[in-house]
Amino acid sequence: MNILFTSAGRRVSLLRSFRRALQASGGGSILAADMDPTAPALFEADKGFLVPRVSSPDYISRVIEICKCKSISAVIPLIDPELPVLACHKDDLAAIGAVTVVCAPEAVAIGNDKLATTAFFSSVGIPTARTFSREEVLNSLTKRERLQFPMVVKPRHGSSSQGVTLCTDEAELEFYLARYRDLIVQEFLRGEEVTIDILGDGKGNILSAVPRKRLKVRGGEVERGITVDDAPFREFILEIGRHFKPFGAINVQCFVTEKGPVFTEINPRFGGGYPLADAAGAGFPELILMLIQGTSPEPRLGRYQRGLVMCRFDDAFFVSMDRLSGVGGPGGSRE
Amino acid sequence: MNILFTSAGRRVSLLRSFRRALQASGGGSILAADMDPTAPALFEADKGFLVPRVSSPDYISRVIEICKCKSISAVIPLIDPELPVLACHKDDLAAIGAVTVVCAPEAVAIGNDKLATTAFFSSVGIPTARTFSREEVLNSLTKRERLQFPMVVKPRHGSSSQGVTLCTDEAELEFYLARYRDLIVQEFLRGEEVTIDILGDGKGNILSAVPRKRLKVRGGEVERGITVDDAPFREFILEIGRHFKPFGAINVQCFVTEKGPVFTEINPRFGGGYPLADAAGAGFPELILMLIQGTSPEPRLGRYQRGLVMCRFDDAFFVSMDRLSGVGGPGGSRE
Repeated sequence: MNILFTSAGRRVSLLRSFRRALQASGGGSILAADMDPTAPALFEADKGFLVPRVSSPDYISRVIEICKCKSISAVIPLIDPELPVLACHKDDLAAIGAVTVVCAPEAVAIGNDKLATTAFFSSVGIPTARTFSREEVLNSLTKRERLQFPMVVKPRHGSSSQGVTLCTDEAELEFYLARYRDLIVQEFLRGEEVTIDILGDGKGNILSAVPRKRLKVRGGEVERGITVDDAPFREFILEIGRHFKPFGAINVQCFVTEKGPVFTEINPRFGGGYPLADAAGAGFPELILMLIQGTSPEPRLGRYQRGLVMCRFDDAFFVSMDRLSGVGGPGGSRE
Repeated sequence: MNILFTSAGRRVSLLRSFRRALQASGGGSILAADMDPTAPALFEADKGFLVPRVSSPDYISRVIEICKCKSISAVIPLIDPELPVLACHKDDLAAIGAVTVVCAPEAVAIGNDKLATTAFFSSVGIPTARTFSREEVLNSLTKRERLQFPMVVKPRHGSSSQGVTLCTDEAELEFYLARYRDLIVQEFLRGEEVTIDILGDGKGNILSAVPRKRLKVRGGEVERGITVDDAPFREFILEIGRHFKPFGAINVQCFVTEKGPVFTEINPRFGGGYPLADAAGAGFPELILMLIQGTSPEPRLGRYQRGLVMCRFDDAFFVSMDRLSGVGGPGGSRE
C-alpha cells in the first residue's frame, strides 16, 4: 500500500510513524509532495514530488497524476489551504483507487473559518469562546459601548496562531482592525491550552483521542507538551465526533478555564504536535491504514500514556544545492 | 576533557558536533545545564544539570560548583543574557581549571546592545544600517521631520528577532514607540540576509568563518539556509576579528544590498543555525578543543562547502513526567 502526503513540509516524524505502521502491516511506500524543493519531508520519503502551489489550477491534476502513476492507496493532506481542494475532489481520487483522508467539504469549511467554528460549537452545545466579527466590534467601538479587555484579535482564516494579538485597550483594538480586514475578536480565556488529537471514521465514531497540554510554543507550534488525562474532555470529544464526523485526523483546541474546557478551534488535519500523541500510543497511522482498507477498527479511547513529555529540537537534512533539482535526496529519490 | 554547555536548551545538534570532536581527540564528556527540566539538550548530554535562572545571584556559584565537581575543562554559554555574567567570571573559572569560551566583557556589551553594535561597526569602517535611538525618533516626530519609510523597529537588547516590526508610516512608528521603551529604529535594508558564523582565537585572529543565507525563518531562527561564498565578506570578517577580537564562536548578521554587505548585528555566541556551517566543514568544535588546550590552530578560512542547504525538521525526546525530576534521561543521567 502506497501513501502520498501532500504539502508534506517538515512532517518528517509523521512520515516515520506511517512508515513503521506500513512495515507492520504488509509494507508499502511513503511518498511526499511539496511545492518547495527544500521541504525536508521530501528527503524522508521514499519518493518526493515537486508540485505547483495549492492555489494553482494545475495542483489537483498533478496530485491525481501522481496517484495514478504510483498506485497510491491514500492521500493525506497536511496544510489548511489544500483541505477544501482535496475534500472537493474525493470522488476523482476514489475513481483511481485512492482514499482521500480528509473530512467532508462542509466540515473543512467550518474548521477553516474561526467564526464558523465557534458557531458550530455553540450549535451543538459545546462551550466556546465569545467571538465577534470585525464589523460587530467596529460597531461597538463607534457606539462607544463598553468592551471587556483584554481581547484577542486573530485572523478569521489563519492557521498556526499567526497574527494572534492580545489587545489591552480600545486604541490597540482600533489599530489592528483598521489595518487588517480578515480578523475576528475573541474573549481572552484564562487557563491552560490543551490540544486534542482526534481520529474519526467519518461516520461519527471516534477511534482514538489524546489531549496534550502546551508547555512551550515556538512559531505557533508546540515545542514542548505533555499528554494529560482525557476524562474532562471525553464527552466533548464524542460530541464533536457525532456532529463534525471527522474522517482521519483532526485536532481541536481548548482552554481549560475555571468553568471547564472552552473550545476555540478545529483544524481538520494532523496537528503539528501529533508526534507526542503518537509516542503516547495514539496509533493513528495503524488505524488509518485499517480505515483505508475498509475495515472497522475497534475504538481505543483512553488507551495512551498520560504524563508523557515531548521535548523537541531541530534535526536537519543537509543537501547539496545541485541535488535539489535532481533525483536524489538522503532518504530517497525525487521526481 | 569535559565540556559544560550552559543554557543548553535545544542545542542538541551542537552537542552532537562536540561529542564527535571529543571522540576524535581523546574522549571526554558532554555536560549540559539549563533552568528548565524539559530542555532537550539535558537528555542528549552525558549528564544534565538543573541550574537557577541566569539572573539569580546563585547562578554563577552553581556553575562554578559543577565545574569543580565534574572537572570541567571548558564552559560554553549559549544564550545572550548569560554572556555578561560568564564574561565577568572568567578568572574565577580559570582558577579552577575551566576556560570560559566567551568574548571579553566589553565585546559582549557591544553585541548585546544594538545601538552599540552599529556604533562599533561605524567606528571601524564596516558598513552598517543607519540606526536611531528611540529619543532621536521621538524628537523627529515631534518636529514633524520627514522620515524615510519603511523603517524597522526592534528591541535594543533583544535576541532572535523577537519584537522586530516593520513600520510603514508615522502612525505605526508612534504606536510602537509609545508602547515599548527599549526600542531602536533602523533603516529598512533591501537585500538577502546573511549570517556569518565566525570563530576567533581571542587575539584578533579568525580561524574559520562560514556565511550562510537565510532561506526560511521560523520563530526568529533559521529553518532553511544555504552556505554561500565568503569572498564578498572576507575583508569585513578579518576587520571584525582585529577589532572585536572574538574568543570562540560568534555570529554576525548583514544584508547584502546593492552597495554590498551592510552589517546589523553581532551575537557573541554560537548562532542557532551553526549546524549548517558545521555540516559544511566549519570545524568550530575541533578548533575550540585546540584553543582550550592552549594550542594555536591554523586558520582555515574558505575551507568549507558552498551551496550546502540545511532543511530542518523537528525531532524530539519523549520522557515520562516522573523521570523529569529524577535521575535518568534517554541520553544520560541528570542531577
